[in-house]
Amino acid sequence: MGILPVIRHGRDARATDCAVHRGPTDRMKPTIHIRDQVIPTDAACVRDIVTSTGFFTQAEIDIAVELVEARLAHGLASGYEFVFVELSGEVVGYACYGPTPCTDRSYDFYWLAVRQVHRGRGLGGLLLKETEQRIRTAGARVIFLDTASRPQYAPTRAFYDRHGYTQAAVVRAFYAADDDKVIYTKKLVPGPG
Amino acid sequence: MGILPVIRHGRDARATDCAVHRGPTDRMKPTIHIRDQVIPTDAACVRDIVTSTGFFTQAEIDIAVELVEARLAHGLASGYEFVFVELSGEVVGYACYGPTPCTDRSYDFYWLAVRQVHRGRGLGGLLLKETEQRIRTAGARVIFLDTASRPQYAPTRAFYDRHGYTQAAVVRAFYAADDDKVIYTKKLVPGPG
Repeated sequence: MGILPVIRHGRDARATDCAVHRGPTDRMKPTIHIRDQVIPTDAACVRDIVTSTGFFTQAEIDIAVELVEARLAHGLASGYEFVFVELSGEVVGYACYGPTPCTDRSYDFYWLAVRQVHRGRGLGGLLLKETEQRIRTAGARVIFLDTASRPQYAPTRAFYDRHGYTQAAVVRAFYAADDDKVIYTKKLVPGPG
Repeated sequence: MGILPVIRHGRDARATDCAVHRGPTDRMKPTIHIRDQVIPTDAACVRDIVTSTGFFTQAEIDIAVELVEARLAHGLASGYEFVFVELSGEVVGYACYGPTPCTDRSYDFYWLAVRQVHRGRGLGGLLLKETEQRIRTAGARVIFLDTASRPQYAPTRAFYDRHGYTQAAVVRAFYAADDDKVIYTKKLVPGPG
């Protein structure tokens, strides 16, 4: 699954049917708001954000949206939790994470994406920090996330390197014959394991 | 997720509400039947089979059953395919597999379990062979499966070693501080990757 916080190249955000609320703050310093409630319009927002990056296949985009829909349909029982970042009322990025089933306090970090036109403002790092804080508060022992070995994902890997993640394992040829799965981890509690 | 074909110790199968059809063949040589259609009674059969092993936590058992229910509700779109083995009309084992989303022809082997009282007859090996045949026919490039490093799973790991699987990676402390995820793989097509 793609985890995408930092992209160097990609298409601009296309026209969107995602709710964007523009107000009097538009010409002022933008206000940043973080929320973890999930609302029905988030499905379209997530589709737009993930698509705007030019980074993901249609199948990957569909899965990103399905996770929001699963959360809307089943609540926390879905296993998917979200953090959204809004800039002056517009949803410009999000993260998705959740407890890994059948593990002792392992958490999966599933997605992190920032709308293409809002990149380079540190919003990926802010989302990562906000998400980690929630995962810690939930009592997690460790975080795992999957990314890919192909060159397109070099900035993604560098992002996690900078934020204290280490490579836990590489599964050769997982995504394709020439594309490995790279599993990153961050331990949240001291001691063995 | 536990993959469990060979267990040395475990509880006997408990009383079951899973459909068991006993006929005149009971005292004759048992007939073995393989099927990959999924029917509503399979949910209870899978619960019984997985529970009978004494191997899995309640959370793991619930997930095994959820995969059957997802398949019954959504068909092949669920991403879960099944192979059942019946012995004189009784479902005594099953395997669950499916294409790994967003990969080039990678397949996940999710579950393999044989009812405790029918172990030691080679039914796990039969299920593995039948499942691999279907995965090959589907055009897969490679199979991946996850198992655990703790001693309880030594027979499981030995089973896959014997059947041509190799360790692709170990993710330290994935399931618990002292329990790693061991990822096995079998390549189905020649060439790199």
